Amino acid sequence: MAAKKEIRIGLVGTGFMGRTHSNGYNRVPNFFPDLAYTPVLKAVCSRNAEKVQAFADQWGYESIETDWKALIARDDIDAVDICTPNDTHAEIAIAAAEAGKMILCEKPLARSLAEGQKMVDAVNKAGVANTVWYNYRRLPAVTLAKQIVASGKLGRIFHYRANFLQDWTINADVPQGGAGTWRMDVEAAGSGVTGDLLAHCIDTAMWINGGITDVSAVTETFVKERMHAVTGKVQPVGIDDACIFHCHFENGSLGLFESTRYARGHKALYTLEINGENASIRWDLHDLNRLEYFDHSDESVVRGWRSIHVTDGDQPYMDKWWVPGLGIGYEHGFIHQVADFLKSLETGEPCSPTFKDALETQKVCEAVINSAKARSWQDTGVEWTEK
Amino acid sequence: MAAKKEIRIGLVGTGFMGRTHSNGYNRVPNFFPDLAYTPVLKAVCSRNAEKVQAFADQWGYESIETDWKALIARDDIDAVDICTPNDTHAEIAIAAAEAGKMILCEKPLARSLAEGQKMVDAVNKAGVANTVWYNYRRLPAVTLAKQIVASGKLGRIFHYRANFLQDWTINADVPQGGAGTWRMDVEAAGSGVTGDLLAHCIDTAMWINGGITDVSAVTETFVKERMHAVTGKVQPVGIDDACIFHCHFENGSLGLFESTRYARGHKALYTLEINGENASIRWDLHDLNRLEYFDHSDESVVRGWRSIHVTDGDQPYMDKWWVPGLGIGYEHGFIHQVADFLKSLETGEPCSPTFKDALETQKVCEAVINSAKARSWQDTGVEWTEK
Amino acid sequence: MAAKKEIRIGLVGTGFMGRTHSNGYNRVPNFFPDLAYTPVLKAVCSRNAEKVQAFADQWGYESIETDWKALIARDDIDAVDICTPNDTHAEIAIAAAEAGKMILCEKPLARSLAEGQKMVDAVNKAGVANTVWYNYRRLPAVTLAKQIVASGKLGRIFHYRANFLQDWTINADVPQGGAGTWRMDVEAAGSGVTGDLLAHCIDTAMWINGGITDVSAVTETFVKERMHAVTGKVQPVGIDDACIFHCHFENGSLGLFESTRYARGHKALYTLEINGENASIRWDLHDLNRLEYFDHSDESVVRGWRSIHVTDGDQPYMDKWWVPGLGIGYEHGFIHQVADFLKSLETGEPCSPTFKDALETQKVCEAVINSAKARSWQDTGVEWTEK
Amino acid sequence: MAAKKEIRIGLVGTGFMGRTHSNGYNRVPNFFPDLAYTPVLKAVCSRNAEKVQAFADQWGYESIETDWKALIARDDIDAVDICTPNDTHAEIAIAAAEAGKMILCEKPLARSLAEGQKMVDAVNKAGVANTVWYNYRRLPAVTLAKQIVASGKLGRIFHYRANFLQDWTINADVPQGGAGTWRMDVEAAGSGVTGDLLAHCIDTAMWINGGITDVSAVTETFVKERMHAVTGKVQPVGIDDACIFHCHFENGSLGLFESTRYARGHKALYTLEINGENASIRWDLHDLNRLEYFDHSDESVVRGWRSIHVTDGDQPYMDKWWVPGLGIGYEHGFIHQVADFLKSLETGEPCSPTFKDALETQKVCEAVINSAKARSWQDTGVEWTEK
Repeated sequence: MAAKKEIRIGLVGTGFMGRTHSNGYNRVPNFFPDLAYTPVLKAVCSRNAEKVQAFADQWGYESIETDWKALIARDDIDAVDICTPNDTHAEIAIAAAEAGKMILCEKPLARSLAEGQKMVDAVNKAGVANTVWYNYRRLPAVTLAKQIVASGKLGRIFHYRANFLQDWTINADVPQGGAGTWRMDVEAAGSGVTGDLLAHCIDTAMWINGGITDVSAVTETFVKERMHAVTGKVQPVGIDDACIFHCHFENGSLGLFESTRYARGHKALYTLEINGENASIRWDLHDLNRLEYFDHSDESVVRGWRSIHVTDGDQPYMDKWWVPGLGIGYEHGFIHQVADFLKSLETGEPCSPTFKDALETQKVCEAVINSAKARSWQDTGVEWTEK
Repeated sequence: MAAKKEIRIGLVGTGFMGRTHSNGYNRVPNFFPDLAYTPVLKAVCSRNAEKVQAFADQWGYESIETDWKALIARDDIDAVDICTPNDTHAEIAIAAAEAGKMILCEKPLARSLAEGQKMVDAVNKAGVANTVWYNYRRLPAVTLAKQIVASGKLGRIFHYRANFLQDWTINADVPQGGAGTWRMDVEAAGSGVTGDLLAHCIDTAMWINGGITDVSAVTETFVKERMHAVTGKVQPVGIDDACIFHCHFENGSLGLFESTRYARGHKALYTLEINGENASIRWDLHDLNRLEYFDHSDESVVRGWRSIHVTDGDQPYMDKWWVPGLGIGYEHGFIHQVADFLKSLETGEPCSPTFKDALETQKVCEAVINSAKARSWQDTGVEWTEK
Repeated sequence: MAAKKEIRIGLVGTGFMGRTHSNGYNRVPNFFPDLAYTPVLKAVCSRNAEKVQAFADQWGYESIETDWKALIARDDIDAVDICTPNDTHAEIAIAAAEAGKMILCEKPLARSLAEGQKMVDAVNKAGVANTVWYNYRRLPAVTLAKQIVASGKLGRIFHYRANFLQDWTINADVPQGGAGTWRMDVEAAGSGVTGDLLAHCIDTAMWINGGITDVSAVTETFVKERMHAVTGKVQPVGIDDACIFHCHFENGSLGLFESTRYARGHKALYTLEINGENASIRWDLHDLNRLEYFDHSDESVVRGWRSIHVTDGDQPYMDKWWVPGLGIGYEHGFIHQVADFLKSLETGEPCSPTFKDALETQKVCEAVINSAKARSWQDTGVEWTEK
Repeated sequence: MAAKKEIRIGLVGTGFMGRTHSNGYNRVPNFFPDLAYTPVLKAVCSRNAEKVQAFADQWGYESIETDWKALIARDDIDAVDICTPNDTHAEIAIAAAEAGKMILCEKPLARSLAEGQKMVDAVNKAGVANTVWYNYRRLPAVTLAKQIVASGKLGRIFHYRANFLQDWTINADVPQGGAGTWRMDVEAAGSGVTGDLLAHCIDTAMWINGGITDVSAVTETFVKERMHAVTGKVQPVGIDDACIFHCHFENGSLGLFESTRYARGHKALYTLEINGENASIRWDLHDLNRLEYFDHSDESVVRGWRSIHVTDGDQPYMDKWWVPGLGIGYEHGFIHQVADFLKSLETGEPCSPTFKDALETQKVCEAVINSAKARSWQDTGVEWTEK
């Protein structure tokens, strides 16, 4: 076996996403042995030295840093992986680009369109490889949905709908800000469910169904004040607890999106459905190995929604795993993204979604927030070019 | 057994709804034997004498008429049941009210708010019993949903969502206008999916969750021209093929509604979901005997959505039917409405939804259509008083 | 319209099945208007005059009897419908045959094979039309399953499995014997779940998959003693509370059957599944309008179980009902059987299952009970000829 | 962090199970960082030097062997993991025990009860830690099922049923014997679905519901001859393609088990259901993160099967993974077993199922095969002691 080329990773952030990304790097050599590149966990960075060392020990990073600028300055780092709260993405990414590092940035790209644009400019100027972790694209059933639509099986698309329903913030005692709950703090997060959850739905939607042109949204903040975990003070809540919008796609189809953290009984129910002239598709994250598919060309008396257990070797990514019927999990989307990123270094193709692609999603998010504030339709300005 | 009081029915219209109503009248004596009133199928009216006679023979009507004015003029008719296309509701209902008849009117109340208002004025002036056939309310699982919410089990409501998805008009060869397809003709129907399907969703929603205050909608007409079945000419399509709107309820919850006849694979998929602070509810028409219920107060490790097969004797209406586990069908909603109408004559209470209640639904429909045209939020003016 | 020929029905028994059959007779004229024959509810018989009169009033019988022999003796009765407990089937049916009446007998045919054989002999000798109410065959989804198998779509059959799970007798306070609970009394019922529930499963199975040749069974009586509702004494329970058997079919496939009244959470869960070389089928009674179908010839990446909502006009019996997506209920199986019985009088073909067909099911039931007692395989002696 | 104690693993076999076990060893340090012991992948053994080296490179083994006796002879191996075909389990395990190695043996323990007894004797004599990879026990939903039953929530148990349905051998061109298809060769496998699939069901069943006392089985071999992949000759097929059995448990409940590789449409559908006096449980492998639970003590009108998404931190093993709603996969059962094995070394408790526990499952398998041959009930002789 030819020696693999090493990509030396420097990870910034040791939270939930730090764990999913680290698992991705660790798993790829076992399951994608044919890649020319292999990740090396060179360093991990977080402010608390003790905690970051424990993280490094657990996940196999060779060294630690407590200042991300020091990490970026190191010569033995090829790629910077940004897993910190949203308010730090731009600064770190721009500095990493200027240092000539490849960048893998957790979604959403940024808190705002303006921040995101600077990030795109920076990677473009630097000419560095870049990607954003919209992980759900790479679950096999979702990738299969993309392939089915791309094949033309659906014909003209009439409807695209997606929602992402959670219930973890109904309790008014959940604080905002701080390590575990920065997503509740508008300063750190930029927005609430729009950037956190709908961004996923929008990314998948445009990947599958093309650009979103205009939106009409409503948002709601059900709990108006929460204690801030850092200051200890009760402060107004700035994020959107719930967001609903309808929209048009470039191809003439209607879109409908909803997200909330107040849907009692739903833990992380990301669902999507696409209705075309000839066929339709449905998927949900709580049963993530399954895709539902309706094909109107089936003989009429035996026509119905097919429940496809996406675990066969001829289905996306599944030749790498077990045998038919044996499902994989949430984490595998990240493993697949690492593999695809490494593959992109071989082929020289971008690893979608790039910063540019993620900026288009940011445009929709910004238009959604603006629409809700203005109580009016907003054009997104999206120019979707990814295929 | 004391002799029952007879309510002599005059039915106008022999289409799909003529059949469901007639079945309702026929079934009630078998399954609700304790009612003080009993329906007598005195006459049925439609323009074609031969066809209406066949209908009368099939369903057991004693006589026929070919002019609804003649039917209304008869002394031996107590109640007029209106099953004709929407453009005739107002004229027939107002005449029937003026003749002092009870009125059972198929939904939607009218083509427009203005028409509906005249109908309400007429029945109020005449002081006649009146009801509108929003049949889905009286499916046992839907009634149970209403009772669960009314019991307070859900606590504060955050979200109400409903959709009604069909696929029968995707084919561009489906005509507009005429006997079987008047729902495609804006002159006859008033609107497309908004009045035909969303009206059901709105009625159920306000019944369960209270008044809708303002709406923001989008509509689409995917097939722009269709042949008119009466004229034979290809004409612009005036109805909405699809409609999406979000809204606020008086209680502060967010609403989301969608209907389309272009959702390939869905025949008549009416679904509703309500998310409250403590519990949630889901239902869909394709598995109509089942209600899903999530109760957050269940012990955490064994907490999950409950699939309730609503077929036990202690569940709404089910003491009238079979034994646990044995489901009933779509038509039973109409049977239950006949029973409840007859019961209302005993108690002197209105049989909801009355014309007044249905007018509130009409207000929402009108605001929805206006919002889509104006691309702006519209207040509904709803004053929901039914409990 | 030509005058219909009347079939004057005499019903014996006013319990649960008396209601389902009566409903069947009442509905057929509304939904099957083209039949040449029409049922006339001439008389109903039960021992309590007051109760039987109330039943007659409710369901529209013209007269009552309190002695079934008197009913059979009447000249104005063409067909006797037997809805009484199992221990009376043979005596009534034989007398009715001797009187030259057509017979519609509730299932199971009899308490034992010996009783059943006498009944078959009697109707054969008399040459009267006869049928047994194995109602589940005529639910549209089950009939569709039969048609799919008959079409050859499944290819060679490997497996047939069915179960019928209930939970209503777990409580030890449920009595045996008497009006509502004669099914718990071995004298009245002949057996427990075997004759009550598995008989349905066996009838459907042989109708779809051919004769069962030999069986190996186990039965269990979980509650050993129960009070007898008539005597008031606690007595040993003679019925099987649960029964499991595996078997061979003539076509070489393996069968697996289970029934119990101790499956907590299942009200009346009759499920069946057939696995063939090329395709498979599943169905369950709790969602009775749906059939699941897997076709291995579908393109592999989009292959999956199809959930068929059997409510389209081209599916069995559904041209008589509503529109696609709108389901029917349990009771409709009986309506369809009435319609098919009347149709059989037109065509001169037997209305399956006839007494002869039901006797084959009785043979399997008897072999099952014998197998459980003897703890050994038993040949059934089935000669299945119905197609 | 205190240095962990190393357990140096020697893996024998590089097939499907070699991969799942290797993944288990690799993942445990990332997800179970608090264990006192840590696995070290010291050596892997298989006959083909080139292939085993590639496997070692992929999975991170430090060295290779091509003779399992050489592996066992090494001083730097603490534990031998046996992943080879069933016909080699006994010889390798006995030799490993005699060499004083801990043993982790893939299921089933052996081809026969006699072989298995020798293995148990060997580990008992040697006093070495031992465990058998019945991996499905340690999927969180299955472990939760065990805990629910152990809590007494179900009360008296009436029924236990399980099946394991596949369809991969329907094609008569699938060979028997050789690397990928040794499971089709009775010499290598000992039996067909009984040892391969039902052994899993039996292990789980006795773990949850106690010992199985007697069985009555039927087996079938649908394709009578297949080419042998090694000899190239068409030979009789000695395995059972399908097996059904019913049984009694010590606690008086009835058991029903079925497995086949001829259930078209089912890839690896392991399902189990337990019915108790007060509650019931269901689970299936195709949606492995979900457990269904019915609790009769719920308020009657809102009582139904609960669909529990077993992904919360208070559910078994799930504190180690992601956040609520985000599922894990098939492979995680093996990761959990590695973790539990390492934990057992800390506590000194056996890691169930031990060889002794697995021998009890072997007894049932042997009784099943004997019962099918003899067409009679067979006692199992099981003495279930694991709690």
